Amino acid sequence: MATAESDKTGLSSKGKYKVIGTRPIRPDGVDKVTGRARYGADIRLSGMLHGAILRSPYAHARIKSIDTSKAEQLEGVYAVITHKDFPDASDKIAELGEGSVNLKHLSSNVLADDKVLYKGHAVAAVAAETTHLAYEALDLIEVEYEPLTPVLDVRKAMQDDAPILHENQRMEDMSPDATTSDKPTNIYKKFFFEQGDPDAAFEKAHIVVEREFTTATVHQGYIEPHAATAVWSAEGKVTLYTCTQGTFTVRQQVAELLGLPLSYVKVIPTEIGGGFGGKIRVYIDPVAVALARKSGRPVKVVMDRASVFEATGPTPGSWIRMKLGVDAQGKIVAGDTEIAFESGAYPVSPIGAGCMCVFSCYDIPDGRIIGYDVCVNKPHSAAYRAPGSTQVAFATESVVDEICEKLGMDPIEFRLKNASVEGTRRVDGVAYPRIGLVETIEAIRDSEHYQTPLAGPNRGRGVASGYWMNAGLKSSVTATVNGDGKVSLVEGSTDIGGSRASIAMQFAETLGIPMEDVVPAVVDTDSVGYTDVTGGSRVTYATGWAAYEAALDVQRQLCDRAAEFWEVDSSEVTYDKEDAAVKGPDGKSFGFVELAEKVTQASEPVVGRGVSNHNEPGGAFGTHAVDVEVDPETGKVKILRYTAAQDVGTAIHPSYVEGQVQGGVVQGIGWALNEEYFYDEAGVMRNASYLDYRVPTCYDLPMIDPILVEVPNPGHPYGVRGVGEVPIAPPPAAIANAIYQAVGVRMRHLPMSPPHVLHEILKKEG
Amino acid sequence: MATAESDKTGLSSKGKYKVIGTRPIRPDGVDKVTGRARYGADIRLSGMLHGAILRSPYAHARIKSIDTSKAEQLEGVYAVITHKDFPDASDKIAELGEGSVNLKHLSSNVLADDKVLYKGHAVAAVAAETTHLAYEALDLIEVEYEPLTPVLDVRKAMQDDAPILHENQRMEDMSPDATTSDKPTNIYKKFFFEQGDPDAAFEKAHIVVEREFTTATVHQGYIEPHAATAVWSAEGKVTLYTCTQGTFTVRQQVAELLGLPLSYVKVIPTEIGGGFGGKIRVYIDPVAVALARKSGRPVKVVMDRASVFEATGPTPGSWIRMKLGVDAQGKIVAGDTEIAFESGAYPVSPIGAGCMCVFSCYDIPDGRIIGYDVCVNKPHSAAYRAPGSTQVAFATESVVDEICEKLGMDPIEFRLKNASVEGTRRVDGVAYPRIGLVETIEAIRDSEHYQTPLAGPNRGRGVASGYWMNAGLKSSVTATVNGDGKVSLVEGSTDIGGSRASIAMQFAETLGIPMEDVVPAVVDTDSVGYTDVTGGSRVTYATGWAAYEAALDVQRQLCDRAAEFWEVDSSEVTYDKEDAAVKGPDGKSFGFVELAEKVTQASEPVVGRGVSNHNEPGGAFGTHAVDVEVDPETGKVKILRYTAAQDVGTAIHPSYVEGQVQGGVVQGIGWALNEEYFYDEAGVMRNASYLDYRVPTCYDLPMIDPILVEVPNPGHPYGVRGVGEVPIAPPPAAIANAIYQAVGVRMRHLPMSPPHVLHEILKKEG
Repeated sequence: MATAESDKTGLSSKGKYKVIGTRPIRPDGVDKVTGRARYGADIRLSGMLHGAILRSPYAHARIKSIDTSKAEQLEGVYAVITHKDFPDASDKIAELGEGSVNLKHLSSNVLADDKVLYKGHAVAAVAAETTHLAYEALDLIEVEYEPLTPVLDVRKAMQDDAPILHENQRMEDMSPDATTSDKPTNIYKKFFFEQGDPDAAFEKAHIVVEREFTTATVHQGYIEPHAATAVWSAEGKVTLYTCTQGTFTVRQQVAELLGLPLSYVKVIPTEIGGGFGGKIRVYIDPVAVALARKSGRPVKVVMDRASVFEATGPTPGSWIRMKLGVDAQGKIVAGDTEIAFESGAYPVSPIGAGCMCVFSCYDIPDGRIIGYDVCVNKPHSAAYRAPGSTQVAFATESVVDEICEKLGMDPIEFRLKNASVEGTRRVDGVAYPRIGLVETIEAIRDSEHYQTPLAGPNRGRGVASGYWMNAGLKSSVTATVNGDGKVSLVEGSTDIGGSRASIAMQFAETLGIPMEDVVPAVVDTDSVGYTDVTGGSRVTYATGWAAYEAALDVQRQLCDRAAEFWEVDSSEVTYDKEDAAVKGPDGKSFGFVELAEKVTQASEPVVGRGVSNHNEPGGAFGTHAVDVEVDPETGKVKILRYTAAQDVGTAIHPSYVEGQVQGGVVQGIGWALNEEYFYDEAGVMRNASYLDYRVPTCYDLPMIDPILVEVPNPGHPYGVRGVGEVPIAPPPAAIANAIYQAVGVRMRHLPMSPPHVLHEILKKEG
Repeated sequence: MATAESDKTGLSSKGKYKVIGTRPIRPDGVDKVTGRARYGADIRLSGMLHGAILRSPYAHARIKSIDTSKAEQLEGVYAVITHKDFPDASDKIAELGEGSVNLKHLSSNVLADDKVLYKGHAVAAVAAETTHLAYEALDLIEVEYEPLTPVLDVRKAMQDDAPILHENQRMEDMSPDATTSDKPTNIYKKFFFEQGDPDAAFEKAHIVVEREFTTATVHQGYIEPHAATAVWSAEGKVTLYTCTQGTFTVRQQVAELLGLPLSYVKVIPTEIGGGFGGKIRVYIDPVAVALARKSGRPVKVVMDRASVFEATGPTPGSWIRMKLGVDAQGKIVAGDTEIAFESGAYPVSPIGAGCMCVFSCYDIPDGRIIGYDVCVNKPHSAAYRAPGSTQVAFATESVVDEICEKLGMDPIEFRLKNASVEGTRRVDGVAYPRIGLVETIEAIRDSEHYQTPLAGPNRGRGVASGYWMNAGLKSSVTATVNGDGKVSLVEGSTDIGGSRASIAMQFAETLGIPMEDVVPAVVDTDSVGYTDVTGGSRVTYATGWAAYEAALDVQRQLCDRAAEFWEVDSSEVTYDKEDAAVKGPDGKSFGFVELAEKVTQASEPVVGRGVSNHNEPGGAFGTHAVDVEVDPETGKVKILRYTAAQDVGTAIHPSYVEGQVQGGVVQGIGWALNEEYFYDEAGVMRNASYLDYRVPTCYDLPMIDPILVEVPNPGHPYGVRGVGEVPIAPPPAAIANAIYQAVGVRMRHLPMSPPHVLHEILKKEG
């Protein structure tokens, strides 16, 4: 595995750190590979009931009545709930974790109010002694529907005569020529960003290319279905075990939806079998809580796989019009794009992020971005790894490739000429700090992969770049020094991708102690300070920073304690992280372990705390190269070789950074080549299982080669940038560009599955 | 219930505080009374096995061999362990929680090494699929014993020809005329304290009384038997669920006994159904851990009641010689005492504390204290509520009463004349800070009880005082401010007597917020800083202090955040606890809740931490008055009325302070009148059940009237003194003195059960 670590740029972290940049075993590793780790469905409580959820057979219908009386009478059934069991949610917009949420929408998504808006929409729920009994009871619930015509495509949903999901929805128009309209619409919001005068700039352009792109609805595809178990105390407090990306976000959503004080809800995180953005919004958590309250017993609810597909957030299907203009020298002079995202049953989709990412890799002096957030009769879309970025990168990077072809210019050269650098102002107005896009392009250019010519028929090589802005937000950590010199680290960030390690390493680095001496614990919402979701690639950045602060706090206390022992002033004592020791006057010194032992025996315990709320997470860029071979008979695309260069800031734990890059690329390849929701006319998903919804496996792929480029983020004490999301963005475009080189067809729809590719090949061949 | 709160002394906390002194409902109350609270035996883990322990039928025997092969072969048995499964423990003395422990002794007590030293001594243990199967397997373990003569009485054990428990034990003699002897002995240690010249002082005394006293072995009598459940991770870390007074002490003992790094042991506390000092040392915890390691499965071990009596720490039986001399005016001039405590199978007993308490209530210029720690063939004695103090108070306060009789002096007057006050130096050398003994004597004198003459035949009134020094030691707390203005308080002190409330109240007081807005959580050893045991009456003092520090830390952070919001310097911002608000220049102000919300939205989380290691816990004194009626036909003593005045420093939560006083008195009454281990000649306890070991119930007792005297402890920010232990010390002496007044016999043996009292009556009547 090539790990350039960008030595020649002088930016590498190599040799700068003791712990950072090494590859220790993750603290949760052994438990996870031996089956000891406790996931969502592993919770079993005394007297626990099992919940099941009745889901709509219609993609769009009005609920005329729900009769639960027969189900309630079934022996062994302890509670049946519908939307009526939730307090009336207002249209209030609550700030929940990463974004704002309309509580009425959230509540109606958890259990449908007066309408069902997608096949699989939850309508009622039952708690019974066994799962089988619960499902039996579902059959006894009588729901009278008035079926309505569904709308399943973003462009159709935007038409004037489209079926309307929310009769009282009016478009919020951010464009300068906005007019208010009282017409019901599926468009929740129209975004508008403009810089310079793009129309005039296009007039002067040497080459202009304008194309339309569409992408299918795809799912995050986490292995573990959602699972939640709730138990109430007699005094009206609830404990919820759940697999989530954000315990505090779940706490807030559950509290808001059920009208409880925040502090009456305690969320205990289990391990989490993948999330990728899809385990932030609540689905079954409030259901388990409401069933447990009504039954007076603990209740566990576990989703089945079909419900995960049909009723949890996929990423939006999209339509994008992309227009770019360049001058004769290949400098981009103008950009203009319209992006429409399928938000699904409720707003909002990640269209905002899509708008921020679409022109992110290029210096475009004059540009315009229009975005539409559009409701359709599909499950409410959710975040999915760099949400919105993959769709728009597909459009931008495909058009860039076509322009390169027209210019006769090497795509690497074109990118180096146009790449965003420190100070570049994006069309949406953001100016960059120090970023490493150019370094990733150079790393690909200089890679053994790119330097090796590709031979053979029906083969092609493609290049694409991508971006994710990353997030900062809030994190808290406490650290307590044990008498044996080990440190217990209490954190609120649920660990999806190895963050126990990446946080503990920053803590250890700050004290100069081995990472193995740090024992991290991911705890419940009552036991640690507020911590935002594990999402936005923020954890290693923000919780790592909190750990750094906690370690500094420990340093200070150790110095104070040593000063007491030595009977000198604190100002004469310093912490030497090279030696992991406290140093005093006259050569006095305590090793960390020695002092930990002494403090435990003879002084106050040392408890450090660190919090962070920094929002300079440092954008992350990646540039990928892929070689493909297309079977002209079937349209099947085979990935021959894949190299992903990424600016990772500082690779705290290079193995897990590489893993993030590889994982992101694989998901991008799945999105590019295979994955999609097949809906029939009635809005029923026909492939809601892993047999029919094809994610790539190790049989489909070569080893993905990551190249870690380290351009430290100036906005973090250790230069950390989030690394988890950007690798999913470039693959579809890179593969589309490779396919063009291989067989001469420009794929503008995802997935580029065999039928679609074959169709384009046949069309080209006439 | 009379609650004087010492208003006339001007010392009362009334009106000084917003939260302290009020009586909110305890946070764990509803869960506990509704059965939701999870105690030791409530733990159930997937795949969990059940452990059982084979116990010695002999009180003293050599183990010649143990053959576990048949047990191991029984279907459904997963592990059998003996002492050999523990690493070789050295004779190392480890500091474990409240005191030092010889690891070899501890290890041999958990599973017997080469000898069994008491009936019920654990010899082997089994883990099997069911409890029944585990007990069946115990029957298949073949142990060959060589029975030895047991010694069951402290005086016999001190004799030269006594059977020896530990052949290599030599007496450690602290007396000035100590000689070293190479003779094996059951006496582990001889304590010696002297002040002035007691022999000369006795020469000059007007009256000298010298008496001998004995007390029986009694048990703490907690309702919940010990229960422990262990589960190992695949990488060699263990999680232990247990009901304990000190999670960190259990962690250390288990780690030491099994040779594990401290940080590899995580102890999760369950609720605890009483401890009183008896749930500090480990018994079954290392057994569960070793069985779980060997079987590879979670293992739960729950003690039965008989084993609790036979094999967990009772309080020592004792022999005491007490000699006091007074001058003609009734001023004590000299004291001399010898105290011998039955340590049980292993040293050490609470003899050291007994020596500190024996003359604690009196100003005795010339005195001598000799203490013996003596091994006998009974279970290893443990702490029991003011350990050692009750035995010695029985002796001292009985002799004081006899002196008063001889002087013709009112016992209240005598005590006021001789009472220890600020500056009094005890015979063992300790000088008192501000204490409230005099105030408790005055409170009894002025009480309606004492002012009401007692009429009727065979009735008598007795008075006695008592003392407990209390402990400080280490505690840690973290506090996180939630967005709804409530605060999560994370603490390491297991809550036996309402300490969640008493800690939360001090935290709330410091911020000026309602106690109900503080949500306390008692967490595991990985999730909070080091915290010593819930014992020594230290929690409200020490963990309360840590909470106070954490609240100050929160104050500082809130001020800093407000300063940022207002864009002023932090020095211009102060926390006003009266208004629970942060105040800035120009009348700027943020209410606590308002700022909590604002901080959660727009700044770093506020996480406070507090630690404490203060050791000025302020001694606690109590003076009790009791009226009894003795049935001269049966010797049965009926308690007619009981009033207990106690210096409680500051009554943080008066109801729970009253509860502590009442509970302590009831245990003292049980010890005085009924409780005792009946051993047969062979050393077998004949009453190892609650049917035969009689603790008093509400049918036996009147309401106990507590009088809370508040003399704030100058060594604590809120004047807290420990309150839980001292109330057990005076009852036996007070009752003995009352019996004397009622029927004219001086009882010098505990318990003063009907046969003993009748015996003395008959002896007196000839």
